[in-house]
Amino acid sequence: MADIVAAITSVQGVKLLDFSSDASHNRSVVTFVGTPEAVEAAAFAGIARARDLIDMEQHHGEHPRLGATDVVPFVPIAGVTMAECVELARGLGRRVGEELEIPVYLYEEAATRPDRRNLADVRRGEYDGLKATIGTPERVPDFGPAAMHPTAGATVIGARMPLIAFNVNLGTADVGIAKKIAKAVRGSSGGLVYVKALGVMLEEKHVAQVSMNLVNYVKTPIHRVLEMVRREAARYGVAVVETELIGLTPLDAVLDTAAYYMQLPKLGRDQVIEARIWE
Amino acid sequence: MADIVAAITSVQGVKLLDFSSDASHNRSVVTFVGTPEAVEAAAFAGIARARDLIDMEQHHGEHPRLGATDVVPFVPIAGVTMAECVELARGLGRRVGEELEIPVYLYEEAATRPDRRNLADVRRGEYDGLKATIGTPERVPDFGPAAMHPTAGATVIGARMPLIAFNVNLGTADVGIAKKIAKAVRGSSGGLVYVKALGVMLEEKHVAQVSMNLVNYVKTPIHRVLEMVRREAARYGVAVVETELIGLTPLDAVLDTAAYYMQLPKLGRDQVIEARIWE
Repeated sequence: MADIVAAITSVQGVKLLDFSSDASHNRSVVTFVGTPEAVEAAAFAGIARARDLIDMEQHHGEHPRLGATDVVPFVPIAGVTMAECVELARGLGRRVGEELEIPVYLYEEAATRPDRRNLADVRRGEYDGLKATIGTPERVPDFGPAAMHPTAGATVIGARMPLIAFNVNLGTADVGIAKKIAKAVRGSSGGLVYVKALGVMLEEKHVAQVSMNLVNYVKTPIHRVLEMVRREAARYGVAVVETELIGLTPLDAVLDTAAYYMQLPKLGRDQVIEARIWE
Repeated sequence: MADIVAAITSVQGVKLLDFSSDASHNRSVVTFVGTPEAVEAAAFAGIARARDLIDMEQHHGEHPRLGATDVVPFVPIAGVTMAECVELARGLGRRVGEELEIPVYLYEEAATRPDRRNLADVRRGEYDGLKATIGTPERVPDFGPAAMHPTAGATVIGARMPLIAFNVNLGTADVGIAKKIAKAVRGSSGGLVYVKALGVMLEEKHVAQVSMNLVNYVKTPIHRVLEMVRREAARYGVAVVETELIGLTPLDAVLDTAAYYMQLPKLGRDQVIEARIWE
């Protein structure tokens, strides 16, 4: 993995934000930031290196995956629009398909077909399943050959909003309550559109948790999700005892949350000392 | 004033964050940031320029002041301790006293005597009052001559925490309620140590306001102040309708506020995407 990270960070203008490797999932996540051109070049370098180092025929792991590079999302952070990220994703997809001969599927905002917006739909059947069906019209890739790369498989590339991993721990060990709350708040069952939620048991703390991904914090802000969880929990006489933000959160999401609870009409970056210094 | 700002920003490594001039107060505020050495050099350049341009014998304005440069606070923002800011303040004070021949008083964290910690105490009598009493032992300056500079008067230099100007608008036009709440929450009358508060009438909105300065947001965080105001207002059946943050607020204060209301055990800068990119 160090080789792949080195290939990415060797590109001028790219800054590594985070790198994590999980043995049981047999999966690594590399997060980096930079100018659009630098980030695209670095992503290409990483995909090329992973193609040379990972043989999917020998690869096992718990996490769903399609190829040596499973998924590459471009995420707009500052000074760049979602439309520009979509263009970057499609440009990279074309290069990966043509130059590296890896079949590429475009997903989320970069998707060319509605049935490919959702990453889980694109990953259906995983490496072995896609290998068997890639010749069918339904699964023809957006770029590259209509056949799996012999060692690197296939890759999903796209553009999406920053995702916020937000968990709410409940004052109960009854996971059934967490599952009911998750069902109430998630978009797929009638709740908030940009919320994905599951009820799970946190064995180490012996509490039930509503584990969520907020996939659009602008349209569905953190506070609205938390307060809905709180109201739903109250019908079971259960309180929120603690929350967790996993990984990185965009500054604007934090500012909006503070503004809501402080009853500020608006809290902008231009009011934060460090943002004024840095930007 | 443009001349003074130019003198400050001509120093390499200094970034101007804010500049405001108020005609009725006849007072300007310049906020800048940089390395300790650059900020000290820029402050010296600004004080020197103000000495040459402003004649206190001809100066009138509503705001309390002692000299052409009234007060210079060093505020630690990142990568610098309060102790280092105190050293900067004292180093600058010595130079201003010796090289510019302006009497200098050290205040707040840089104060050398307890009766000079509070800026209002140092400013007592203002320009004319100090001119009459500067020869007394009680008012001997920390640096420079024990006589007012003939045009520039005297200057107060010190170090302090970033100050948060936080106002809470109430659902009432009864300024008496705002005054009672201010008295309950401020340190000087038994409330929270690092809160200064007044009850005022906001004529344009026709609501009463609790207008506050939070002078140590680490030891007295925003949420604790707001919730105390809310509880005190509730005894009069009055709600908080809106709040205001005036000027710039430190990122850590915003993160701590969001963490409190979200029930996160901790929200660190390392969890904020932009802070990771910038720092």
